[in-house]
Amino acid sequence: MEQGRVLLDHGGGGEAAHRLIREVFLSRFTAPEGTVRDDDAALLDEIRGPLAFSTDGYIIDPVEFAGGDIGSLAVHGTVNDVAMLGAVPLYLSCAFILEEGLPFPLLERLAQSMADAASAAGVRIVTGDTKVAPRGTADKIFITTAGIGRVIADPAPSGTRAAPGDAVLLSGCVGDHGLALTALRGGLHALSDIRSDSAPLNRMVEALVREAGDLHVLRDPTRGGLAATLNEIARRSAVVCLVREADVPVRDSVAAGCSVLGLDPLYLANEGKLVCILPQNRAEAALNAMRRFPEGRDAACIGEIAPSGADGKTGQVILHTRLGGRRLLSMPEGEQLPRIC
Amino acid sequence: MEQGRVLLDHGGGGEAAHRLIREVFLSRFTAPEGTVRDDDAALLDEIRGPLAFSTDGYIIDPVEFAGGDIGSLAVHGTVNDVAMLGAVPLYLSCAFILEEGLPFPLLERLAQSMADAASAAGVRIVTGDTKVAPRGTADKIFITTAGIGRVIADPAPSGTRAAPGDAVLLSGCVGDHGLALTALRGGLHALSDIRSDSAPLNRMVEALVREAGDLHVLRDPTRGGLAATLNEIARRSAVVCLVREADVPVRDSVAAGCSVLGLDPLYLANEGKLVCILPQNRAEAALNAMRRFPEGRDAACIGEIAPSGADGKTGQVILHTRLGGRRLLSMPEGEQLPRIC
Repeated sequence: MEQGRVLLDHGGGGEAAHRLIREVFLSRFTAPEGTVRDDDAALLDEIRGPLAFSTDGYIIDPVEFAGGDIGSLAVHGTVNDVAMLGAVPLYLSCAFILEEGLPFPLLERLAQSMADAASAAGVRIVTGDTKVAPRGTADKIFITTAGIGRVIADPAPSGTRAAPGDAVLLSGCVGDHGLALTALRGGLHALSDIRSDSAPLNRMVEALVREAGDLHVLRDPTRGGLAATLNEIARRSAVVCLVREADVPVRDSVAAGCSVLGLDPLYLANEGKLVCILPQNRAEAALNAMRRFPEGRDAACIGEIAPSGADGKTGQVILHTRLGGRRLLSMPEGEQLPRIC
Repeated sequence: MEQGRVLLDHGGGGEAAHRLIREVFLSRFTAPEGTVRDDDAALLDEIRGPLAFSTDGYIIDPVEFAGGDIGSLAVHGTVNDVAMLGAVPLYLSCAFILEEGLPFPLLERLAQSMADAASAAGVRIVTGDTKVAPRGTADKIFITTAGIGRVIADPAPSGTRAAPGDAVLLSGCVGDHGLALTALRGGLHALSDIRSDSAPLNRMVEALVREAGDLHVLRDPTRGGLAATLNEIARRSAVVCLVREADVPVRDSVAAGCSVLGLDPLYLANEGKLVCILPQNRAEAALNAMRRFPEGRDAACIGEIAPSGADGKTGQVILHTRLGGRRLLSMPEGEQLPRIC
């Protein structure tokens, strides 16, 4: 499988499909003990306690970028979605849709990247599927992962649980992933040092649950960026989220790049950051827990939850700007940049 | 959402995406008690005992066909893969990749079909994801589902457990799904009464576990058909599978259609059939259990497992033909028909 390209035959149920699965995937995705992996489903040991279950499809273009690729992103994204329920992600499934003609060396790099990302996050890829779409009916490779985890937070954090007086924490700088992709697609070499922040957050979540406890909301601000995530939380919890713009960590290079391109880092996607909302008296413990991780080094308290705005409305995000003003940070309507994840 | 088309904005993290998810999906996919479904992951109650976990991507073309559509197929296929571990499927995730420009009425029909199929199978769609691919980078709609179930067979059936002396049972006629799709794509109106057999098999599996017990192998012969499935089992169990061609149920209309088109029904995909391999003394109970279900009405014993062939080889399927001869039923190399599921 060192060279050549994916053919329609690799998506059938016959010899070619079995070879591809064995040589490209099974050889890289190690099976945990207590699971059988060569049937159409994986047999998993009992998981004690409530479960978290999540899925995401990844159609990112280009498939390889500074700081990651569609393979590592497909692992990190679902690991993070599972973790955001205050859970320890354990198992992943992965379903590939491959475009006929995809070069095998690229597929093998992406499979290896998934294996490495899963191993680094401590999760196992235990079951999967491969389909081949005729040339022109899909673009290179789409990956859908689903994840199962054991919920360790009690009660589990939820977008509905932000409460007046809570602190709003952010685990690090925003905008890197979205800007890295924008730069790459636009061929903007001046921004070529900006890398995606794609990273697994499950160990940070575990530390938060154990050391800070009582997490009201955990959420990773991916599509739509921090602005979409905070608006969603404000609506679902029927509160107002007050954010101090000056306290939102943004890398200088990202701020400069956004300024040139007319982008707002608060609306750009992130793939290795989390928002944590919890009582003020737990905020210091939570920040300390986050800062022990490289991807949490820049963690900061960026605001707080209020019962309503000056006009009595809820479901809004109010930004205290650097210049001392206040404005609504609105929910984005659509997509700045398609195929960002 | 009654008219119009899917836009790139529907794949962002903003208002348009939330509207689509709420109006098209959440309104149809009922949440079970004990789950929260509006976060990025679902919170599920503890499941007692080992788990079955499976995923499949569906890229079928056309998306609507006689006997089903990509929505019902995406539910049935994963429900069946989970059930084949001797498990009761409980929860599904669904990830949509939508092509920009997909008409909303079609999307709504497919979502309704998924909801109906899940309801009929007794499983809940609890979490999902939606991405929109720019026009021309995906074909209409791809759906990936993942499923979790509670394993009730002990030990769980596996492709490695076929044993010499076991009976090989088939739950019904083969070839319907593959031939229905072939006819539809080729515009063969003479075959327009042939319908896909797409159906959930989980209740039949539950009856098999409870009434026949000691199931060695359960497998649904999808891509590659019965021939691929039996070859895979023969190899993994290091046995020979003897099949009596005359005992394999094939509808007259399917046999006639295959004959005209030069297709072999043993190599055509099925989406509502299972192969059950178990000790001979359980075969009658298993057949009775299957025949109680409409989709198991034509269940038959089609052969048996032998330790090896006349030449001492294992990992083969030997067909006793209608004419009294014997021949190897080989593993297909590739795909007769792309985008069959």
